[in-house]
Amino acid sequence: MHVLLTNDDGISAPGLQALYQILSENGEVAVVAPDQEKSAVGHGITLNHPIRVTELPLVDGKTGYAVSGTPADCVKLAFLEILDKKPDIVISGINRGANLGVNINYSGTAAAAREAALYRTIAIAASVQGQRGGDFHGAARYIRHLSLETLKNGLPPMTFLNVNFPALPLSEMAGVRICRQGLSFPDEYLDRRKDPRGKTYYWHGCDFKNTETDIAIDSAAVEKRFISITPIKCDMTDYEAIPGLESWQILNGNSAINR
Amino acid sequence: MHVLLTNDDGISAPGLQALYQILSENGEVAVVAPDQEKSAVGHGITLNHPIRVTELPLVDGKTGYAVSGTPADCVKLAFLEILDKKPDIVISGINRGANLGVNINYSGTAAAAREAALYRTIAIAASVQGQRGGDFHGAARYIRHLSLETLKNGLPPMTFLNVNFPALPLSEMAGVRICRQGLSFPDEYLDRRKDPRGKTYYWHGCDFKNTETDIAIDSAAVEKRFISITPIKCDMTDYEAIPGLESWQILNGNSAINR
Repeated sequence: MHVLLTNDDGISAPGLQALYQILSENGEVAVVAPDQEKSAVGHGITLNHPIRVTELPLVDGKTGYAVSGTPADCVKLAFLEILDKKPDIVISGINRGANLGVNINYSGTAAAAREAALYRTIAIAASVQGQRGGDFHGAARYIRHLSLETLKNGLPPMTFLNVNFPALPLSEMAGVRICRQGLSFPDEYLDRRKDPRGKTYYWHGCDFKNTETDIAIDSAAVEKRFISITPIKCDMTDYEAIPGLESWQILNGNSAINR
Repeated sequence: MHVLLTNDDGISAPGLQALYQILSENGEVAVVAPDQEKSAVGHGITLNHPIRVTELPLVDGKTGYAVSGTPADCVKLAFLEILDKKPDIVISGINRGANLGVNINYSGTAAAAREAALYRTIAIAASVQGQRGGDFHGAARYIRHLSLETLKNGLPPMTFLNVNFPALPLSEMAGVRICRQGLSFPDEYLDRRKDPRGKTYYWHGCDFKNTETDIAIDSAAVEKRFISITPIKCDMTDYEAIPGLESWQILNGNSAINR
């Protein structure tokens, strides 16, 4: 299998290194990843700065590509410039820290997989709960298996898989659940502080404690020691809302504003 | 109506100013917007830098808040710190340049509306085609009408409206269409150049020409001189893919990797 590997923790992150090691046993793995941590950049891309690409040796002596932009930039660079041909699959991760529920929006890890899916390529985003990371090696072995199964079975066009592992050795996990995305909002806050010059600044802070109880929801499954797999669609249209909107008094722009 | 106004072009952008002027006639408008252009930052949020907030006088002498972060940061700041109570509606824009199809992913304008929807608040993202902007004043008048209709009719929880105007005076637009999101990929490229030291760098470039023919798709409608309104869901789960995934040989993590 031909794999493009990327992430948002940066090219030297241990989660990416674990995947590189395991996936290289089964095929050809290209690495195009940010040159530094790009967490929480969402699906941002770089338009207002030039993008630089640095060639770096990987553990086995092959060449990896460190990109000055976002995870989505990395996928664009790989597809449009670096790779000779499209990979069979794009894998993003393994991220240090879960990407569950509403946090999928902020996740650069998920955005790279979404970017690949928009390019009609099979893609998986993988993350391990906890800032210390868990069993990257075990998680990488599971991702390899899942990749092969995904290539065998296929995915609907423009859908990718978002996979999250509990912070445990693989042998202690309860199993695997196919989940939906949670939509509870995390308990977040802005921590207001004063700098040495007396000027106010804020840190964004968040309590990542799961508040979902239904194990069919991604964060609840991971809390119950399951690996969660959520199929994520690129099409964001709320089709069910369309007929209602068509009945509103909004369809004639000029008469609407001239009332 | 109590409005929170934000954008990704920055607090001094003409599209935001036009909305502020028109919406202030009908109610109370708070402005919390980036202190500089934050286009294409997607749904990124600021975790690795402190966030600064600067108070600035608005055209009518009231106080606006310029934030050093992303559009999504602005909504968090407004809700968690600046506003005394939640607004009735959050409006993001009016953006200079359309946010249609796959570009909704990259759009900070849309992300601010999505952030508000995640906070269970009614939200509208508004954009005008073309980098010169079109009829911001006319578009702002239509957005005011749409806002009042949206507050009257309500939206499904965690769905927001993404509105795009052609670059024309309002009187020359063909009408309004309720659309789905296009998923054709734009014709994009990376422009490779050399700096004066001979080092390579890249600019991301994109031909925004519409390739959709079905007028039920956002970019096709705008090309045909319609205002497009697309209801966008926060829930990204591909529910239809779940049963298929549950039949794959992936549900037992340990046996899967020990084969």
